[in-house]
Amino acid sequence: MALKTGEQYVESIRKLRSNVHKWGQLIQDVSTDPATRLHIQSVRRSYDLSHDPARASIYTTKSHLTGEAVHRWNSLMQSAEDVMANSNMKRAQYHQSGTCQGATCAGWTALNALWDSTWQMDRDLGTHYHERLRRYWRYMEDNALALAGAITDAKGDRSLGPAAQPNRDSHLHIAERRPDGIVLRGYKVQICGVAAAHEIICLPGSGYGEAEADFSVAAAVPRDSKGLTAVETRRPSDTRDEEQGWDAPKAGNITQAFLIFDHVFVPDERVFLCGEFAYTRGLLATFTALYRAAIGACVAGQGDIMIGAAINMARANGLSSKRFQDKLTQMAINNEITYGLGLGAMLKGERRPSGLFVPDALLAHVNKTQVARLPYETKVLTQDIAGGIGETGCFPSYQDIQSPEYGQEILAALDAGADGETRARAARLVEWLTVGGGIPGCMHGGGSPDGARLVVRAAPPWEEYAAEARRIAGITTELGDPLPVKKD
Amino acid sequence: MALKTGEQYVESIRKLRSNVHKWGQLIQDVSTDPATRLHIQSVRRSYDLSHDPARASIYTTKSHLTGEAVHRWNSLMQSAEDVMANSNMKRAQYHQSGTCQGATCAGWTALNALWDSTWQMDRDLGTHYHERLRRYWRYMEDNALALAGAITDAKGDRSLGPAAQPNRDSHLHIAERRPDGIVLRGYKVQICGVAAAHEIICLPGSGYGEAEADFSVAAAVPRDSKGLTAVETRRPSDTRDEEQGWDAPKAGNITQAFLIFDHVFVPDERVFLCGEFAYTRGLLATFTALYRAAIGACVAGQGDIMIGAAINMARANGLSSKRFQDKLTQMAINNEITYGLGLGAMLKGERRPSGLFVPDALLAHVNKTQVARLPYETKVLTQDIAGGIGETGCFPSYQDIQSPEYGQEILAALDAGADGETRARAARLVEWLTVGGGIPGCMHGGGSPDGARLVVRAAPPWEEYAAEARRIAGITTELGDPLPVKKD
Amino acid sequence: MALKTGEQYVESIRKLRSNVHKWGQLIQDVSTDPATRLHIQSVRRSYDLSHDPARASIYTTKSHLTGEAVHRWNSLMQSAEDVMANSNMKRAQYHQSGTCQGATCAGWTALNALWDSTWQMDRDLGTHYHERLRRYWRYMEDNALALAGAITDAKGDRSLGPAAQPNRDSHLHIAERRPDGIVLRGYKVQICGVAAAHEIICLPGSGYGEAEADFSVAAAVPRDSKGLTAVETRRPSDTRDEEQGWDAPKAGNITQAFLIFDHVFVPDERVFLCGEFAYTRGLLATFTALYRAAIGACVAGQGDIMIGAAINMARANGLSSKRFQDKLTQMAINNEITYGLGLGAMLKGERRPSGLFVPDALLAHVNKTQVARLPYETKVLTQDIAGGIGETGCFPSYQDIQSPEYGQEILAALDAGADGETRARAARLVEWLTVGGGIPGCMHGGGSPDGARLVVRAAPPWEEYAAEARRIAGITTELGDPLPVKKD
Amino acid sequence: MALKTGEQYVESIRKLRSNVHKWGQLIQDVSTDPATRLHIQSVRRSYDLSHDPARASIYTTKSHLTGEAVHRWNSLMQSAEDVMANSNMKRAQYHQSGTCQGATCAGWTALNALWDSTWQMDRDLGTHYHERLRRYWRYMEDNALALAGAITDAKGDRSLGPAAQPNRDSHLHIAERRPDGIVLRGYKVQICGVAAAHEIICLPGSGYGEAEADFSVAAAVPRDSKGLTAVETRRPSDTRDEEQGWDAPKAGNITQAFLIFDHVFVPDERVFLCGEFAYTRGLLATFTALYRAAIGACVAGQGDIMIGAAINMARANGLSSKRFQDKLTQMAINNEITYGLGLGAMLKGERRPSGLFVPDALLAHVNKTQVARLPYETKVLTQDIAGGIGETGCFPSYQDIQSPEYGQEILAALDAGADGETRARAARLVEWLTVGGGIPGCMHGGGSPDGARLVVRAAPPWEEYAAEARRIAGITTELGDPLPVKKD
Repeated sequence: MALKTGEQYVESIRKLRSNVHKWGQLIQDVSTDPATRLHIQSVRRSYDLSHDPARASIYTTKSHLTGEAVHRWNSLMQSAEDVMANSNMKRAQYHQSGTCQGATCAGWTALNALWDSTWQMDRDLGTHYHERLRRYWRYMEDNALALAGAITDAKGDRSLGPAAQPNRDSHLHIAERRPDGIVLRGYKVQICGVAAAHEIICLPGSGYGEAEADFSVAAAVPRDSKGLTAVETRRPSDTRDEEQGWDAPKAGNITQAFLIFDHVFVPDERVFLCGEFAYTRGLLATFTALYRAAIGACVAGQGDIMIGAAINMARANGLSSKRFQDKLTQMAINNEITYGLGLGAMLKGERRPSGLFVPDALLAHVNKTQVARLPYETKVLTQDIAGGIGETGCFPSYQDIQSPEYGQEILAALDAGADGETRARAARLVEWLTVGGGIPGCMHGGGSPDGARLVVRAAPPWEEYAAEARRIAGITTELGDPLPVKKD
Repeated sequence: MALKTGEQYVESIRKLRSNVHKWGQLIQDVSTDPATRLHIQSVRRSYDLSHDPARASIYTTKSHLTGEAVHRWNSLMQSAEDVMANSNMKRAQYHQSGTCQGATCAGWTALNALWDSTWQMDRDLGTHYHERLRRYWRYMEDNALALAGAITDAKGDRSLGPAAQPNRDSHLHIAERRPDGIVLRGYKVQICGVAAAHEIICLPGSGYGEAEADFSVAAAVPRDSKGLTAVETRRPSDTRDEEQGWDAPKAGNITQAFLIFDHVFVPDERVFLCGEFAYTRGLLATFTALYRAAIGACVAGQGDIMIGAAINMARANGLSSKRFQDKLTQMAINNEITYGLGLGAMLKGERRPSGLFVPDALLAHVNKTQVARLPYETKVLTQDIAGGIGETGCFPSYQDIQSPEYGQEILAALDAGADGETRARAARLVEWLTVGGGIPGCMHGGGSPDGARLVVRAAPPWEEYAAEARRIAGITTELGDPLPVKKD
Repeated sequence: MALKTGEQYVESIRKLRSNVHKWGQLIQDVSTDPATRLHIQSVRRSYDLSHDPARASIYTTKSHLTGEAVHRWNSLMQSAEDVMANSNMKRAQYHQSGTCQGATCAGWTALNALWDSTWQMDRDLGTHYHERLRRYWRYMEDNALALAGAITDAKGDRSLGPAAQPNRDSHLHIAERRPDGIVLRGYKVQICGVAAAHEIICLPGSGYGEAEADFSVAAAVPRDSKGLTAVETRRPSDTRDEEQGWDAPKAGNITQAFLIFDHVFVPDERVFLCGEFAYTRGLLATFTALYRAAIGACVAGQGDIMIGAAINMARANGLSSKRFQDKLTQMAINNEITYGLGLGAMLKGERRPSGLFVPDALLAHVNKTQVARLPYETKVLTQDIAGGIGETGCFPSYQDIQSPEYGQEILAALDAGADGETRARAARLVEWLTVGGGIPGCMHGGGSPDGARLVVRAAPPWEEYAAEARRIAGITTELGDPLPVKKD
Repeated sequence: MALKTGEQYVESIRKLRSNVHKWGQLIQDVSTDPATRLHIQSVRRSYDLSHDPARASIYTTKSHLTGEAVHRWNSLMQSAEDVMANSNMKRAQYHQSGTCQGATCAGWTALNALWDSTWQMDRDLGTHYHERLRRYWRYMEDNALALAGAITDAKGDRSLGPAAQPNRDSHLHIAERRPDGIVLRGYKVQICGVAAAHEIICLPGSGYGEAEADFSVAAAVPRDSKGLTAVETRRPSDTRDEEQGWDAPKAGNITQAFLIFDHVFVPDERVFLCGEFAYTRGLLATFTALYRAAIGACVAGQGDIMIGAAINMARANGLSSKRFQDKLTQMAINNEITYGLGLGAMLKGERRPSGLFVPDALLAHVNKTQVARLPYETKVLTQDIAGGIGETGCFPSYQDIQSPEYGQEILAALDAGADGETRARAARLVEWLTVGGGIPGCMHGGGSPDGARLVVRAAPPWEEYAAEARRIAGITTELGDPLPVKKD
């Protein structure tokens, strides 16, 4: 049976070696430590909801290997509908926790992208990566693994390539090739969901050239591998998430980690690309097309919660939410644009010979440019509706509200359309979503908007458009750019 | 053979009775009159390109009735891919003429919507509308008809319903029921493509109630029916389109007409809804879901031409188009948003039991809100790149350029990165696209953005979002809108 | 008495030699010819309103030379309040005609800028330009002249400077220096208000270097000078302005002309800069600071009329304008931003030793960037409120409405909240303002937004901001841009 | 001598009775407690810079009472230049600390507004408020006081007025009138700068009617008055500001407090409005005109620091800041719009008979609507330029960087265009400005944007615009809104 319960999931995570840190300390039990427990709780919920008849169609699907039910994040996306189901699951997960869920996201997408790239390599080069991946896939399914995806390298100086960096560790690389496997060294940074994941799917962080063969590596690495150290990053207002009380919501959160690979050995059967630099660009392109088509559903899901938070806030202030209907409608429009544009990328996508379905790259990257703008407008509208109380943490702390001396006065001052505590909780959610720990990485998560714009720039047939316009205008002369390009 | 050539098409249009007017005059031959010939030329091209092997897949498809090749605008849309093909044809048509093509658009969509509504009526009411429609469809296919779609009524006072209007003609209505058919009276306005169409598919302009049974009528009316008078409307700078010379481009244009139905008899076999007011709302909803999902492709197609026009203009000014790359990329983003969001509506759509595929209404209407904004931004960018010459008609007329006295001086003053005439033609295209006859009805075409916002407003599960936000915030009390709704 | 009546003004214009053309023809009487009469009517109104006690403070002020009342467009701007009064007059003029008024605008500003530059040249170089200008100023005042301002040259290939152009006429230049004056040759293009002006104030179109001494020329040229030919440009839908009927409003309009200087002799006393290239940059900077601070009032004035047009349209459709209050308020916000930001530039300006007051260049150019965006948003809102009837000329022509055969039916179809003709007139105004002849040159008028952005780019103390941010961040190391600049 | 040094200022603040709390605890010394010390440090700097010859003109001016030098925040604003100097000081203060400075801001403005309202009351009612205020002003000047301004009441249920609230304390009110003064009871909330202020200037939070006479009260209350309790609010990521290390910048910050007035006695000489409800509306209008004209300078000042932070971040990433010039220029445009539009409100303002200069209300409120939008765009651009590291706290804590076990590895992973610590500090500033403790209350600070929109809505002569548009359109019939207003 490839499905696990939430309890089984947590149990399996607790069995891993402790190698996650925060605040300069080793975390003994990630499932209970304040720094990580909320993310594990989020992921646990996805395991549990896989068994809820009303939601099973969201959180599970059929295995392409066995035909049996598997968690969706263990499946191969074979059609536009499968990728849409990814989007729908993400939107639903945001509805559960209000934020991002790392350990069922990028690792899954990374493995999907590898399905196609390994197929291509085996076809072209006679390698056996795809066979290995298929075996690993079966193992992953059978164990219902949660996977983090590690793509972003530390990168070092942005003006230099990996091989030219003063510190070779700026990018994860093959430090040694052994008969039975490889040894990895270097840094992957800002990796979501590490604490809640069983394994980490590593992909090269960019498209590489010949000089970068050692950086061209993809592999599945157990999270508790020897030599691997994870250090959790801070989030906005992260201490609130870790505090007692309700100055932050507690329905779940997201974590990111820096990963230090200090000579981590990976056996061959877990290595899916090893020096074949020519395939890194395609691998990344496949990953980003999948990822950026679906990312609009994430921010839509959070936008839905912002709508709900704004409605609650209006009411807690004593006002009808209808008064803000135009703004709420605009928030819904913003949400549906990023969600729907991603779906458009899917409809225009194609099924590769390997069986993987890949959305249209242009539309997926256009979507990324909107994901980097519209959620911010939605946040601004949320704060606009919420009133001053939701803007800059504008009321005293949970501890102050407990003060025997003046706590009741604070609550009385907070009373409005709802009792003081209800209004305060509603406001803390607005804060958390807009300037607090609930903010997902809309701007650079899944790559930068400027990077997406480069893809957009590369796609349209500019000269064809110009020629069509000349035909319509009745221009019969040639009209090319002056040479050389003039200086501004 | 269901496909016609452009020549056959024009010939068949010329055979119709003359009943189209402009400038207070009856037009004798719409295929040669300056007021209408350019639109007919646009439509003719779509017929011709149906026979071009490189483009046949855009302009033709298989009949669902006969399995034979038909013009796409004569086909039933049975899948998301079929609706996407509608979008793709529209984008391609804009690439041909730079603007809208009425006679292969709304009538087609109207007939598709009727396919489903008649199916429902026959199922529910035991009527025979669907059988009639199927026969009419076969006739239309066999004759490769161009169809205008007449939805918008004159409406009269917007604060009153059809039945309450002082002038019953404000909406098209059944003036008389005869044994063999009905008699129509009233006004349909702003109907695109009439002069180039063989027939006009009339739909009710809104969802109607019991008092409006006589306004609840759908029918296929030959364009040259007895009693039907068409009066073409003005377009911005329309006299340029009709002038000699090249102060407007001549690759095609669009027309709109006011239709005066003065006791037009329609035989039963052409009537597809006749008093069944309860089905008007659904019919319109199906029409708008199809229409507004595809409309983003129209403005994308024109946006592509604006990109081309801007590139040409930059070069004609003596500058590299690369200098404006960020603006060009933004224009492409705007285009792909409306195109791609429409595709998203399709992927999320559903196939009805009748066989018609209908896009998701929420996403289609969200798209309409963007169609009413983004093309305007694209125009602004076009003018920004073009320089002052493309903004407000900023150079003398074609006639001045022909002046023996000073024409050569004007041309010399226009010389820049290209010869004066080329630059002038490039600028006239920019003008035509942004403040001239090439402007399509982005704002209210296919319905108003405020109307679309009402659909958006009706769709989201607002209370569910609020409840989810309360759960995340840890709020356990109820929190509803205060009653009664407070005044602002 | 320095003030003239409208009648006196028109009479004086009629006395000028005929040298204005349109449609390939010489215009015999600009005050009656359909192509030019509406602009002259606009200017005439400003003369008349100078005598209206309720408006005299808008249209007149005191002469800095004589202390007597003069038309405001004949005065020196000596304080922030004077420049604000310029803004206020422009906004009021738009309220009169709905559009721009060329012959009381740029020429006036050009003369103001020359006041300061000639003062500087006399001080620095011992020339006598300022004395000349003072005498000319007195002459202008005494004769209450209307002045066009000719700044924009034909320019030729944008990638080459004036001296490098294949055609020297691309820029106005000194073709010959005579003992008593100079001879001008070349093209000035897109010059507003020529037909309604007595004289044309020519300024160099850009800042020039040593090689461009012959292009460095400023002078006052009578509009009917020997050798000077004006050719009017087309405007969007310009034939409607010239037609009978009311398919365009007739309260006034704007004209632009191409000016062909074919060896125009200018006597010394009318020459204010002649080869002193080093002063051209400063002269232009002064002109643009004045011009771009005030230009926001122009578009605000037109925006006010768009508000009015939208209100009328809503009512003519049968709806309360209150229904659109949020959009109307946003239109007002857009108007006040460009108006108020210009005023901010004035408050931050400075009085020069010459007596001229010059607004802050940074804020004036920031304003220009907004003038190139916000009026377009306002237009979109106007069309949004107006409904489909105001969008693309969506109803038949005046001539059709006169048709004995079907004119009454058209009117009946137009009936709504107002009678058909009222509604049609309201819609034609919307059209004229948004896609017709009433559009002013928001984008490139007074210079391009990209040019304004260059000024903005040059102004802020970027490195100081970076240093302040480092201090706040607690960064003690240096942090400069990498050298050389990395390629994207 | 009316000027104090920073040391004198701090000393005087330390002498106040302890009545400020945070985290459920009484703060013993606000000048050293982590929760409040940074704001006091900010204010101290303004006192110190008053003595810096290079900056004295920013931070000081002449007293209108004595003609001697006073701190600017102790002065009466008598001209547009004085209000501009307020703006300029605010922008400079943001350059110092990166954020808002409460104790030299709203209290000052409140006292200015009272200058005029007391003058009016004395004139109209024969009261002696203005005399009292003049005496208090002298006292304030002589003691160089820092003043908080308490306008916002707790408000309670937004759908009820003050007198109808279930809890009368929802608004500050006169609980008792004694022969020598009044007793205040109730809550003022979100009051900036309390901990750093000597006194609190209380104004009514809204315009009141007859039933609200007891809520109509303005007074100067010493911060350490008996019965007054202040509880500091949380800010985003506020614990970082209080932590050791540099996970937040330490150049200053802002505080807000809830104020509990529990029978605070205020002697008559400190009471400036006491029951005269009819003057509350005017008082507020004067306050908001002053405040919202200047608030654009605040967000411009922070925007300047965001520009600097983005430049540093680009360089620390190894990239030239020039690569992002277009975005930086847009940030500068945003800054100058809010700054310059406020200046425009000033130029259009008027000097009241009392001697106070008041900016134009319409432009000031238009500015508020932009202050509620543009700074958010600027933040988005800052994050866009910064890269992923500046977005969601994406790297480990200061404590982790100190870890002997892996701290060096974290620093190595952070190394890029600058050493790891420099880059981390640069990123922490971006975070603090965009999602951390440095965020000022752009949205609702100084009142809500919806409130500002109501002022904008009330100002324009809508009917006049409609009439002008009708005249231009040639419409001679009346055209008013239909009555009654139609339902949507």
